[in-house]
Amino acid sequence: MAFSPLVDELVESLRCLPGVGQKTAQRMAFHLLERGRSGGSRLSEALSSAMTGVRRCDSCQNFADTEICGICDNDARRNGTLCVVESPSDLLAIEQAGDYRGGYFVLMGHLSPIDGVGPEEIGIERLLARVISEGITELILATNPTVEGEATAHYIADRLDARDILITRLAHGIPVGGELGYVDGFTLTHAFRGRKPLSE
Amino acid sequence: MAFSPLVDELVESLRCLPGVGQKTAQRMAFHLLERGRSGGSRLSEALSSAMTGVRRCDSCQNFADTEICGICDNDARRNGTLCVVESPSDLLAIEQAGDYRGGYFVLMGHLSPIDGVGPEEIGIERLLARVISEGITELILATNPTVEGEATAHYIADRLDARDILITRLAHGIPVGGELGYVDGFTLTHAFRGRKPLSE
Repeated sequence: MAFSPLVDELVESLRCLPGVGQKTAQRMAFHLLERGRSGGSRLSEALSSAMTGVRRCDSCQNFADTEICGICDNDARRNGTLCVVESPSDLLAIEQAGDYRGGYFVLMGHLSPIDGVGPEEIGIERLLARVISEGITELILATNPTVEGEATAHYIADRLDARDILITRLAHGIPVGGELGYVDGFTLTHAFRGRKPLSE
Repeated sequence: MAFSPLVDELVESLRCLPGVGQKTAQRMAFHLLERGRSGGSRLSEALSSAMTGVRRCDSCQNFADTEICGICDNDARRNGTLCVVESPSDLLAIEQAGDYRGGYFVLMGHLSPIDGVGPEEIGIERLLARVISEGITELILATNPTVEGEATAHYIADRLDARDILITRLAHGIPVGGELGYVDGFTLTHAFRGRKPLSE
């Protein structure tokens, strides 16, 4: 772009966002310059504060502003259950569902030896230490139902095998509101195997 | 999000970008925090500089860092032709094609009485003054082939009717590399009417 180095730099910088290519970055830059300067300035400040201020919670590894995040710091949520998730967005989805009131541990990934991600990288030792020190009675392994997620869940379960801790995995089945005709075979098989009496 | 006000604010701010909703904003925020902190900081600075530093070129109305943009300031491009476009991205597309070497005038919109956009809002008086003062010999009306774009082009042409200036519109036809079977009827009709001898 011959007309403005500042606009060039803005377009180039916007490309660091996931899923944003050259054309989208251009559209975003022009939108902000034409109609959203106040939004753009607010975004600039939010980015700057977050990039320097956001750290990992010492207890659950999730993003936090403080040493211990709001959830870990909440006594009411130390009820002996701990839910292990792969990412902050998984935690968020569970929080938005609103039913679960225990603690979390965020792996920030999954075991993936091919990418050099072993137990150390996703904090499994820290998780095991916490399970024991806090006297956790139920560990819910809510990693994704993918090959890596399953492997991670089994690895954690194996490491805690000798201890008297209930280890659970989220139920598979038909999504609420889903249509049977569109549900894949594996899910249907799981749903059949996990069927329950109507009176329950 | 209970765990971090800084992350909340970042997600909320990212939603000022066009086409970015809650889920996409979350994904962007987590991506930057996990894997792109340096990119995030760079974006923050680029936003801040652009939001305060980018202004409109006094001559062509395009975004610029200086009073007169690089294209308007280039003597070689004052060759008597002026191309009128609706937006900076249109200008950019023409520049990237690389063939046109004249000047530009960026309307930053099109006539749209229903939205309160009249000739004054898109700088038509300034355009006419420039056409006359610079002794423009050809005015290329490259507004979009939409109802508003056509109306804007006709309005400008009418205003210059009495003067001895060649006023042109970009050719309609089959896109290079396009397949005939997928071209719409209007475009095909234009392509037929605009057909040329093979030897040209």
